[in-house]
Amino acid sequence: MSDRIAYAPFKDLVVSADEAAKFVNNGDRVGISGFTGAGYPKALPTAIAEKAKAAHAAGEEFKIDLFSGASTAPDCDGVLAEADALRFRSPYNSDPILRNKANAGEILYQDIHLSHSGQQVEEGFYGDFQVAIIEVVRILEDGNIIPSSAVGNNLEYIEAADKIILEVNTWQSENLEGMHDIYKIEKLPNRQPIPITKVDDRIGTPYIELPTEKVVAVVETNAPDRNAPFKAPDEVSEKIAANFIEFLEGEVAAGRLEYDKFIMQSGVGNVPNAVMAGLLESKFENIQAYTEVIQDGMLDLIDAGKMTVASATSFALSPEYAEKMNAEAERYRKHIILRPQQVSNHPEVIRRVGLISSNGMIEADIYGNINSTNVGGSRIMNGTGGSGDFTRNGYITTFVSPSVAKDGAISAIVPFVSHTDHTEHDTMVIITEYGVADLRGLAPRERVEKVIAVAHPDYRPMLEEYFERAKANKFVHTPHDLKTAFDFQINFAEKGDMRG
Amino acid sequence: MSDRIAYAPFKDLVVSADEAAKFVNNGDRVGISGFTGAGYPKALPTAIAEKAKAAHAAGEEFKIDLFSGASTAPDCDGVLAEADALRFRSPYNSDPILRNKANAGEILYQDIHLSHSGQQVEEGFYGDFQVAIIEVVRILEDGNIIPSSAVGNNLEYIEAADKIILEVNTWQSENLEGMHDIYKIEKLPNRQPIPITKVDDRIGTPYIELPTEKVVAVVETNAPDRNAPFKAPDEVSEKIAANFIEFLEGEVAAGRLEYDKFIMQSGVGNVPNAVMAGLLESKFENIQAYTEVIQDGMLDLIDAGKMTVASATSFALSPEYAEKMNAEAERYRKHIILRPQQVSNHPEVIRRVGLISSNGMIEADIYGNINSTNVGGSRIMNGTGGSGDFTRNGYITTFVSPSVAKDGAISAIVPFVSHTDHTEHDTMVIITEYGVADLRGLAPRERVEKVIAVAHPDYRPMLEEYFERAKANKFVHTPHDLKTAFDFQINFAEKGDMRG
Repeated sequence: MSDRIAYAPFKDLVVSADEAAKFVNNGDRVGISGFTGAGYPKALPTAIAEKAKAAHAAGEEFKIDLFSGASTAPDCDGVLAEADALRFRSPYNSDPILRNKANAGEILYQDIHLSHSGQQVEEGFYGDFQVAIIEVVRILEDGNIIPSSAVGNNLEYIEAADKIILEVNTWQSENLEGMHDIYKIEKLPNRQPIPITKVDDRIGTPYIELPTEKVVAVVETNAPDRNAPFKAPDEVSEKIAANFIEFLEGEVAAGRLEYDKFIMQSGVGNVPNAVMAGLLESKFENIQAYTEVIQDGMLDLIDAGKMTVASATSFALSPEYAEKMNAEAERYRKHIILRPQQVSNHPEVIRRVGLISSNGMIEADIYGNINSTNVGGSRIMNGTGGSGDFTRNGYITTFVSPSVAKDGAISAIVPFVSHTDHTEHDTMVIITEYGVADLRGLAPRERVEKVIAVAHPDYRPMLEEYFERAKANKFVHTPHDLKTAFDFQINFAEKGDMRG
Repeated sequence: MSDRIAYAPFKDLVVSADEAAKFVNNGDRVGISGFTGAGYPKALPTAIAEKAKAAHAAGEEFKIDLFSGASTAPDCDGVLAEADALRFRSPYNSDPILRNKANAGEILYQDIHLSHSGQQVEEGFYGDFQVAIIEVVRILEDGNIIPSSAVGNNLEYIEAADKIILEVNTWQSENLEGMHDIYKIEKLPNRQPIPITKVDDRIGTPYIELPTEKVVAVVETNAPDRNAPFKAPDEVSEKIAANFIEFLEGEVAAGRLEYDKFIMQSGVGNVPNAVMAGLLESKFENIQAYTEVIQDGMLDLIDAGKMTVASATSFALSPEYAEKMNAEAERYRKHIILRPQQVSNHPEVIRRVGLISSNGMIEADIYGNINSTNVGGSRIMNGTGGSGDFTRNGYITTFVSPSVAKDGAISAIVPFVSHTDHTEHDTMVIITEYGVADLRGLAPRERVEKVIAVAHPDYRPMLEEYFERAKANKFVHTPHDLKTAFDFQINFAEKGDMRG
């Protein structure tokens, strides 16, 4: 047995994943650890999936409602979705099998702001939770736990659930201990200010207090986080990154930013990675991150002495960088803080620290409304995640995207977004490889020219025609022509190309 | 000269409004006091409008960019819009002339969250401000000022402007002194937690510190706030109110609310007034309001001993209740706190106190997206105001509306909103005279039946047909049929009736 289980009474609870899965029943509401492929349970999901398959083979119902921090991995969401073991999933997901089943109407998926999900669990909006399954690095002598590579909604699920199953994953570095900052936001009506005024403030404990009496099973694992590799930045990503950094330089020139005061939030992906690579070569120093996830580029910035601190709720590293983290967690933990996602994504702290947000999108319309989630209005991709938490409350909020996808068949700039995740009231800046559309302080009609200027040249005439047609209508505060507003998306659905 | 000007040096600055208007020039960015028809300058707008008309008659350009707290009145926005004296207006407006010119493309109107506007002025997103025009109750001996019936963005405009013009309005009760709680949120990077943990916490001063050297003119006025009368609740409003209170009772029954723990936020209008009338007769006690505006119904609740404290940034009273306030401000100020709108609408405080929000809407779609602002996607009504501040951050967030408008020609429930101010991720509850659609914890497809159930019976079959048609498509996470998504709005535009 692993020496990571230092609380004696739990040694008797060590069982196999299959045995532990007996505590998970049809119809249960289950909260798990895990966020962007890090810190999710590695063994129970497969065991639950097998249990579901056996039940289904026997003609019995077996489905659970699954709640996490954010996305997990093929060996969690993937196996459960594949086994038809999920009735309902929230608050975020990026698994292809789960996504396909949600889009086929076979799984109900609720896509919700990541700062809201734990709170709504606490507030009882979902009802009771039967089980929490939490991956940990270590169980301390007193029964408290060191979470692993994601904190997520662990506190909320541990509190809400009747039964707790712990997975002790020896793959995770023991040196993650000390990296976490566990602060519990009081419940209503006793909430207090969250005492973070600087990104590197630590306000909690390095461990999670565990109601040990609820623990029904402990499972030992030794399995890596998902750790999807990132592609090397391509030419388009590099251009977008250069435009983003040029925008930052412009803010410095305008007196709205200083070279040593940049606080970043960043979505995950190729473009953010290119931005971070660009920052390595930039004049910005003492960069801080107040964000959801720690990415490869942040470790590079830390290694280069360009980033002093990164605060998040989880890792989202490539396999190579995850190994580096496991080998050097002791060094990195001077620069990295992992917080509960209610804190990492809290409007209060985000607005207070004054970060510059940067998130991807599916499409923006000519007025700055943003679709982050549903292709063609109906087809969920991943989810809104924390993009709303950061976009509504950031100091400057940007959306970054290549101007086209699928070899030009899809334009990221459309007349009317087919789903709105961020409103025209919230979007400040849209950046593509063609430039920066700075929409701050502009009325809707004033934004159109700037947005069209960052669209792909193939699409600019179509967008201009739409705007002209819309302006011919009677009311032109936000000129639209509803009969042709979705022509881009309809063309794509019918002909495979937005150009028709 | 009024004895309300107690700071000696200002006595020499007292001039007529026409003389003071000389300090306002073509192209100026002007920030004024005023919020929902209260506390706006009464004399300067007309004087500026006359100056604009004279300039236009002489073939000269004269337009300003006007910023306020929120809406003003015919003798402010109305006269300036009528005189074509406005190039740009932000962050909110409800004037019919201004609205018509915005919809005709003659005035640029930027509609922005009310908690964001002052912050973005401070952050320099609009550029420099030349003039601030602030209505006050009294100028103190040391030159500091007692604001009048709205605080709004006064602090931000006073700080941003090169020149300040004060209007001392003797119509406003001197007993408003002591009702205000002026707390200045520090600018980045020095922001601190806002130390409000309870609705009735006072954290600032009763006066605004004035940089007296910037004051260029003082104008005396004696003119009432706009104070639009409210209509008596009709049968539909009363049904909606009854449904709202029944919903609250259900929350008590579910253990998520207590009869003496209800904190309300409420938009303005007939339905909210009916709700407050209903609360008078309800079991709820010690009601608190953390909201934008103090309305008639809140004074009734205070008078009845049912409401202990109402925190807002402004009044929005009927003429009758404004007189009552003027006569009894000394009594009411024990129960009323007027704060800067960055504080009344701050995400941090809203989330901390845990209020239940209630706002009107133009339309909701079957998934819970809300259009608060643009009829048919293009025609601005008023603006999003603070509804986003409260909806994103409230404990429970509701939208209340009659199920139809214009004698049934417009349905408040549509297949696809023609403008999105609040996303499906944010809307929890929709209430009409037909009932309560509680969307908490539901995936998009699960919400449809509940939303259609609160639509007007005339529209339910059309909505069901849309959903069936949408579900026949390939991707059904959020089923839509983009070709017919706007049929309701197109029918209305072409035939004057959404039923076609």
